[in-house]
Amino acid sequence: MKLSDVVLALEEIAPPELAEDFDISKIGLTLDLENDIQKIAVALDPTKYVLKRSSEIGADLLITHHSLIFHAVNHINRSLADILKIALDSNISLYSMHTNYDKAKDGINDVLAKKIGLSNLQETEIGRIGTISPCSAETFANHVSKSLDTHVCFTGKKEEISKVMVFGGSGFRDEYLEIAKKNGVDAYVSSELKHDIIRSWEDILLVDATHYATENPGMEELCPRLEDRLGLDVEFIDHNPFIKIL
Amino acid sequence: MKLSDVVLALEEIAPPELAEDFDISKIGLTLDLENDIQKIAVALDPTKYVLKRSSEIGADLLITHHSLIFHAVNHINRSLADILKIALDSNISLYSMHTNYDKAKDGINDVLAKKIGLSNLQETEIGRIGTISPCSAETFANHVSKSLDTHVCFTGKKEEISKVMVFGGSGFRDEYLEIAKKNGVDAYVSSELKHDIIRSWEDILLVDATHYATENPGMEELCPRLEDRLGLDVEFIDHNPFIKIL
Amino acid sequence: MKLSDVVLALEEIAPPELAEDFDISKIGLTLDLENDIQKIAVALDPTKYVLKRSSEIGADLLITHHSLIFHAVNHINRSLADILKIALDSNISLYSMHTNYDKAKDGINDVLAKKIGLSNLQETEIGRIGTISPCSAETFANHVSKSLDTHVCFTGKKEEISKVMVFGGSGFRDEYLEIAKKNGVDAYVSSELKHDIIRSWEDILLVDATHYATENPGMEELCPRLEDRLGLDVEFIDHNPFIKIL
Amino acid sequence: MKLSDVVLALEEIAPPELAEDFDISKIGLTLDLENDIQKIAVALDPTKYVLKRSSEIGADLLITHHSLIFHAVNHINRSLADILKIALDSNISLYSMHTNYDKAKDGINDVLAKKIGLSNLQETEIGRIGTISPCSAETFANHVSKSLDTHVCFTGKKEEISKVMVFGGSGFRDEYLEIAKKNGVDAYVSSELKHDIIRSWEDILLVDATHYATENPGMEELCPRLEDRLGLDVEFIDHNPFIKIL
Amino acid sequence: MKLSDVVLALEEIAPPELAEDFDISKIGLTLDLENDIQKIAVALDPTKYVLKRSSEIGADLLITHHSLIFHAVNHINRSLADILKIALDSNISLYSMHTNYDKAKDGINDVLAKKIGLSNLQETEIGRIGTISPCSAETFANHVSKSLDTHVCFTGKKEEISKVMVFGGSGFRDEYLEIAKKNGVDAYVSSELKHDIIRSWEDILLVDATHYATENPGMEELCPRLEDRLGLDVEFIDHNPFIKIL
Amino acid sequence: MKLSDVVLALEEIAPPELAEDFDISKIGLTLDLENDIQKIAVALDPTKYVLKRSSEIGADLLITHHSLIFHAVNHINRSLADILKIALDSNISLYSMHTNYDKAKDGINDVLAKKIGLSNLQETEIGRIGTISPCSAETFANHVSKSLDTHVCFTGKKEEISKVMVFGGSGFRDEYLEIAKKNGVDAYVSSELKHDIIRSWEDILLVDATHYATENPGMEELCPRLEDRLGLDVEFIDHNPFIKIL
Repeated sequence: MKLSDVVLALEEIAPPELAEDFDISKIGLTLDLENDIQKIAVALDPTKYVLKRSSEIGADLLITHHSLIFHAVNHINRSLADILKIALDSNISLYSMHTNYDKAKDGINDVLAKKIGLSNLQETEIGRIGTISPCSAETFANHVSKSLDTHVCFTGKKEEISKVMVFGGSGFRDEYLEIAKKNGVDAYVSSELKHDIIRSWEDILLVDATHYATENPGMEELCPRLEDRLGLDVEFIDHNPFIKIL
Repeated sequence: MKLSDVVLALEEIAPPELAEDFDISKIGLTLDLENDIQKIAVALDPTKYVLKRSSEIGADLLITHHSLIFHAVNHINRSLADILKIALDSNISLYSMHTNYDKAKDGINDVLAKKIGLSNLQETEIGRIGTISPCSAETFANHVSKSLDTHVCFTGKKEEISKVMVFGGSGFRDEYLEIAKKNGVDAYVSSELKHDIIRSWEDILLVDATHYATENPGMEELCPRLEDRLGLDVEFIDHNPFIKIL
Repeated sequence: MKLSDVVLALEEIAPPELAEDFDISKIGLTLDLENDIQKIAVALDPTKYVLKRSSEIGADLLITHHSLIFHAVNHINRSLADILKIALDSNISLYSMHTNYDKAKDGINDVLAKKIGLSNLQETEIGRIGTISPCSAETFANHVSKSLDTHVCFTGKKEEISKVMVFGGSGFRDEYLEIAKKNGVDAYVSSELKHDIIRSWEDILLVDATHYATENPGMEELCPRLEDRLGLDVEFIDHNPFIKIL
Repeated sequence: MKLSDVVLALEEIAPPELAEDFDISKIGLTLDLENDIQKIAVALDPTKYVLKRSSEIGADLLITHHSLIFHAVNHINRSLADILKIALDSNISLYSMHTNYDKAKDGINDVLAKKIGLSNLQETEIGRIGTISPCSAETFANHVSKSLDTHVCFTGKKEEISKVMVFGGSGFRDEYLEIAKKNGVDAYVSSELKHDIIRSWEDILLVDATHYATENPGMEELCPRLEDRLGLDVEFIDHNPFIKIL
Repeated sequence: MKLSDVVLALEEIAPPELAEDFDISKIGLTLDLENDIQKIAVALDPTKYVLKRSSEIGADLLITHHSLIFHAVNHINRSLADILKIALDSNISLYSMHTNYDKAKDGINDVLAKKIGLSNLQETEIGRIGTISPCSAETFANHVSKSLDTHVCFTGKKEEISKVMVFGGSGFRDEYLEIAKKNGVDAYVSSELKHDIIRSWEDILLVDATHYATENPGMEELCPRLEDRLGLDVEFIDHNPFIKIL
Repeated sequence: MKLSDVVLALEEIAPPELAEDFDISKIGLTLDLENDIQKIAVALDPTKYVLKRSSEIGADLLITHHSLIFHAVNHINRSLADILKIALDSNISLYSMHTNYDKAKDGINDVLAKKIGLSNLQETEIGRIGTISPCSAETFANHVSKSLDTHVCFTGKKEEISKVMVFGGSGFRDEYLEIAKKNGVDAYVSSELKHDIIRSWEDILLVDATHYATENPGMEELCPRLEDRLGLDVEFIDHNPFIKIL
């Protein structure tokens, strides 16, 4: 299948116009080798490990959530060169779907909400809001931990949880929590919790379930969808950062 | 003692010209009531709880690390008004020493290095670098956890640790880790670890010891120094965010 | 009555979307105490004197033309603190309607035109244009002085006046006078006349009737309108700067 | 005398590097005809009237305080064309000394201070500070009016005046009044007084003595200095805007 | 005929809203003498030579492609003054139609395409695309040279030419050649060819036919159109830069 | 030899701090493979042809004047990927010395001046000025053509040439010609001559000797210097764009 035809399908799944302004120049075909595609690899990040595995399984295209080059470059250092070499030698194009796939139907946030088992799902401009059977804060945090198979950090004064907002990746920002508050949310699940957010939003239960564990499922679920749609072999490559807690 | 005289002493302890560019307009007397100072409260953040306690102990001045208004405002909302009311009714001026106190001698970073027990301390442009007796990554993380009385998250491939860099608060940035790398650092202790940092710096042990636990000691140690210097009563107010881990 | 309901009424009188771009972030609830409103004070400026009077008459809300904080602040100085203390102690919220009320129907400019007795009123993008019975420049300036009860400064070569443009506040700007010229205006009434304007527009009679006297009437007339609309007690507080002339 | 030699002398009197940042591109030879100079005209503004008079007296160069083109242009309208035609037909070059001459020794501000009869003159970064025999606010305002032969507007609560700051032209800005306050000034003489300044600085007597009357003397006094220095005929052209008061 | 009526006709021929963003403030009446127009001169540039000729033939208006003042000015130097003097003394207004006339129907690019004899003309966002009878690169370059009566420089690997894009003036930019490539163009005719363009676009025949020769015809053809439309005398003034080649 | 040691030598030859502001982020090691260097290739541009030749001759480092990536990228297209693949597969690092080498002693401009045979060389902020035996414009243009083995385009009214300024690459800018004029230069040799420059500077002989021919010699002469200095094998790769003239 022609790369340009694969791209058309990917743009239907995650329309580029959904991307945040800062992100618009970073998504799409970040390495365009104009090659034919028989096999596709999918992963969260285009790390050296992920590229090696993509090469081993014979992928012609690697689709990731995060892009290879986030801040535009004039210089290519050794670490970027190592990754590019694997891609160029194995003729693997790179494609990134980031904030556009966060928001897209059945994208990062929808998969995250499903994993946590939210009901009555409601789409906001950014994350997803839903309900669970009322439970204590600790019980809810424990449920998130098990659903996503990750450690969690949590804080806040809220004691009973039934309305929940989720946002995959780094979603602890004032403007997003403003939306949560307006919607009467009890708990907010995202990652990369910061001190100033803890201080400003102590009336909401804040659950940090790690960037990896809140976004990885959305990429994994992309695989069967792509196989169905394109009739190509699609394989997920998992690269867990293995964060430890003491 | 006149407020302006207290300010002169504070500016010797944490010279304003040390502040980062983004911070320069945010530090100093953030609420200037031109009052006389008999008693001083010190805390990490000017939260409502901290203001109430400052009022209860009869403080005339509250010194914090973080400023009351970070993003300049035209509007004062209810939450800011609540804090201001306590300060105005109890005649408490507010003073903030932030990135200038991070870098200052015996400031946030020096106290953090001392708490962790680093030897052969070396001052970099931003954090502090020192050594410990060689130990495994897990042992070192455990040592940090106990020294700072906090949970820690850690990750990275480094197995033996002897050279360590510390940076109180939110210090996991590429430009700071570049400095760590150039200095051959094995472990970097700071807070608010992010996914892209984990992916880019897997050769260094990254230890996230929370924003609170890496900065609070520096504010606490300020109290005896101020008492000695000013001959006034100075009291520390601890407001722990109590983050839980599962 | 809930503050939010009062705000809805104020936004119908002076729609926020009419505000100039530079002003958009400065209008509205500039001190939001989320309190219940029984009595409203109205004034041109939120000065210390005006706040004291508002407190004395038991107002829960003070509506002014100019906002309390024009340039966004990170620091609160003594003079701002004094005003805030009165507002916070007497539980008075603050609301500002500025360039949006200038342009609004029956706003600053309409009231000013009415005070001067203009006929055949025509709304421009910014001020108002109307006619008077033809008279000399000196007679017209004298009429403005009496109508608004203020001294006036005037200049220009125009000798007979019948078409007049008015703009409350600081309206001597080239782009506004361009509009006046296109409309064949003989006299332009506003305030804060500047030297470069005098040099560039000597073919139009320029009448400076002071910022205070051209805007104060519009705020005073707001009172009966609000009483009618809200059924609350509304009281005007006049704070004249008393400029003297020699 | 060559124009370039005249320019060298003018740059010694008002060094270009003294100009404010916004002004740097606007001063100097604003119409450079590279002609020989026998006779020089001096005026406050390059108005059509001033150009006509310059032509009538046979001037080869017109020196003004304000520049011909303040906002840079791509288009020349009729009014600018009329002025340029007189200059080009009579071969008159134009030179502007503005904020550089305000601050220069014996420039606009020094002449203004002298006219008002200030003693113990002290140079600040911008205006001049000096003393007069203590008198009431009204007496002082009257003295300014007579010294500068102009009407004045004044306001403020200060009752006894002995320390005075002067700033020719449009000098009622917060940052300048901050300097006045720090120096314990009782009265501030300048022009183009604005409402927000009146509200913020009511503890200082503010005297608006018009832009024209505070700057014109400085240009007039330039004439004998230039005659002495250059040995050329130099003539002052006075163009009074004749503002009337009611 | 009133100047404003001539301007209306010119704006129909080259609608100002077609101009590039950078150009919008530079086109139109660049010297507006509000005079009556009996005779019009047309040329590529408002050089001193062109103004002298305009004066000699008694023109009241000079229409050029390039504007008199490209970068907005605060200062008028001798060279600009010389040109202005001729215009002001002979009462000649100036009008510029630039990037708006490039794109306009029957404008610069259409005339250029016609001169080269392109068929099947297709309008792109910027230039024009058309076809010629297939020929070699050298034959095509020779044809352009003869059609436009100019020397040409050419380069590129393309050997057979049938589809051609033309862009009058300085059109060798990456974004324009991107359009050429998408349209399968064999040769691109424009001017001011640059080294980095040669390196990036070697698969297209690049023909530099000089700025003068690619734009001058479009201005010449404007004359009969204006005569027909306005019933005024219109004369073209040719000012060839005479570039020599060795 | 270690790449970092080669870089130190290159930085002595062309100090990075000499680079223009726009260029500072583009020079230096643009592809840093941290490899050992035995053989160096030098060329004007890092084209695909040049990379292939570099690979064939076994180079470990390619030094060029122009950088591989001029506008910073987030995306790598096919054409850039093709060049990178050759470099990565053959383990060739890339280094760019651009505007810093233009100005450096014995850099682009010095070599150009020597090629043309200028005497009494004088260094300006940007190009070089020198003298030749007086001759006609045509004779001088012919001499440049032969000295640099290139066609030339020339224009201007100057008839006798003895003082000459040279600037390798794209140097026909108003600010550079201003310097030429102040130095009384008769002829200016550079490349990429533009129409507006021709119109503004007709009193100087402008000689366009192509970007390639004015810069290539400076890169060629770098080879023996590097061989001497480093004791490594250094080979020049010439990639002529072969522009034809009719």
